[in-house]
Amino acid sequence: MLWFTEQHKDSGLIIKTKSYKEYHSEYQRIEVINTRRYGKILILDGLIQTSEKDEFIYHEMLAHVPLITHPNPKDILIIGGGDGGIVREACKHQNLNITLVEIDKQVVEVALKEFPSISSALKNDNVKIIYEDGSLFIKNKKAIYDIIIVDSSDPISHSKSLFSSKFFIDAKLALKKDGILAFQCESPFLHLNFIKKTKKTLSELFKIVKYYLAVIPTYPGSLWSFALASNTFEPKMNSKKLKRIQSLKTKYFNEEIYQACFALPNFIREKL
Amino acid sequence: MLWFTEQHKDSGLIIKTKSYKEYHSEYQRIEVINTRRYGKILILDGLIQTSEKDEFIYHEMLAHVPLITHPNPKDILIIGGGDGGIVREACKHQNLNITLVEIDKQVVEVALKEFPSISSALKNDNVKIIYEDGSLFIKNKKAIYDIIIVDSSDPISHSKSLFSSKFFIDAKLALKKDGILAFQCESPFLHLNFIKKTKKTLSELFKIVKYYLAVIPTYPGSLWSFALASNTFEPKMNSKKLKRIQSLKTKYFNEEIYQACFALPNFIREKL
Repeated sequence: MLWFTEQHKDSGLIIKTKSYKEYHSEYQRIEVINTRRYGKILILDGLIQTSEKDEFIYHEMLAHVPLITHPNPKDILIIGGGDGGIVREACKHQNLNITLVEIDKQVVEVALKEFPSISSALKNDNVKIIYEDGSLFIKNKKAIYDIIIVDSSDPISHSKSLFSSKFFIDAKLALKKDGILAFQCESPFLHLNFIKKTKKTLSELFKIVKYYLAVIPTYPGSLWSFALASNTFEPKMNSKKLKRIQSLKTKYFNEEIYQACFALPNFIREKL
Repeated sequence: MLWFTEQHKDSGLIIKTKSYKEYHSEYQRIEVINTRRYGKILILDGLIQTSEKDEFIYHEMLAHVPLITHPNPKDILIIGGGDGGIVREACKHQNLNITLVEIDKQVVEVALKEFPSISSALKNDNVKIIYEDGSLFIKNKKAIYDIIIVDSSDPISHSKSLFSSKFFIDAKLALKKDGILAFQCESPFLHLNFIKKTKKTLSELFKIVKYYLAVIPTYPGSLWSFALASNTFEPKMNSKKLKRIQSLKTKYFNEEIYQACFALPNFIREKL
């Protein structure tokens, strides 16, 4: 019997595995396991990126919170996210031009082949895919995007540059004046100092910097944080947003979650 | 090297273990492991009950949500909870008479010996400990308690009766007219049908039945649910409650969490 194990700091997750495939790209090892508990799971360099069973939580929360916070989003840049989950969620909103910048073409190819339910929107007419390092792509872009969503793996290896001050400055310049930056920001149980550091950097660049939470059982620590930064738009509910949220077909996100996700437990609030 | 493993439905948690102790009571196997990641962990019949590192989340959420929802709690019954965590949190409120009914005396003894930070309030003057099966203790009690909190292990073995219709009826009778019942209710990721069944039963007995959530990394599924049932009091914020919440010393619970914890993701809301 095969067990996949992902271990962090003296603890980990084990998942019984029915089948296993391995690919090697220029950037990383790509593994796909099939499990009864979580369906198919995409693993990059040994770390779970997404599972068929719980991917909706991460993708809905990273996509819809910034998309709803902006009253009229049009031009969207997604950095990373080669599995297509963020693109799929973004495509639930009307009239978006979506640019996906993924460093690793093979991630997109594996997603199209192995994860059709996640990658389903990657071939939509309003989606343009560019294969490039996101931190290089974004340089010298001026006031182009309403929203930039960074759907990266952990801040190590080729994803490290997506959490640097330099990247946040480039992202701010690439955003229109009222644009919104959102990114996954690791687990408050394991990486609270890292989250704090990103908040400090963002707060020097944006007037409104908020962190929000969701639970993702296959991620280390399970509690996951996301950052939202803007100079203009607060993530507050109003009747227009309510109508937009209710028109979305979602399994996790709803109008209550849109507000509740910003409530931070004391141990996080006090640190930030 | 020793690894503790807790496995559920083809997946599980592994924790590197520095030391291990085992006790056998009349009711169950009691294990205590010491880990770098979660500190000391109490395990009953192979299932993690509480860890020094994340116990505050479970205990604060199960204790303070009902205690704050009641405007003037005095007489509190805690069923289960022999580790003392709920008692410790309840003792942060003023002027309570607390009765703890724990079936297994040895759990209390192990908690006092091995988990002083959790069991610290068990010897307080306002705390009375009775060693008895909670489902038997509660029979024929009439209108005695303002709040009943059920801090049980999973609904199997000797804890099964604490989730039966019979028990909920007895609990309702044991509560004063405006009393509140609260209990831990398993993980929405793994036990959503079970949660739904408890809701149906409670809704036949109480006018107000709400479920709320918290994240507990050492529990299977990580996302955990709690039930709150009352004929009188809604868990809505007001200025008096705000003042009471702000006077508590808590690491997870606060005035935002008190409201946000009731926001249910769509996959739970639709099922309930």
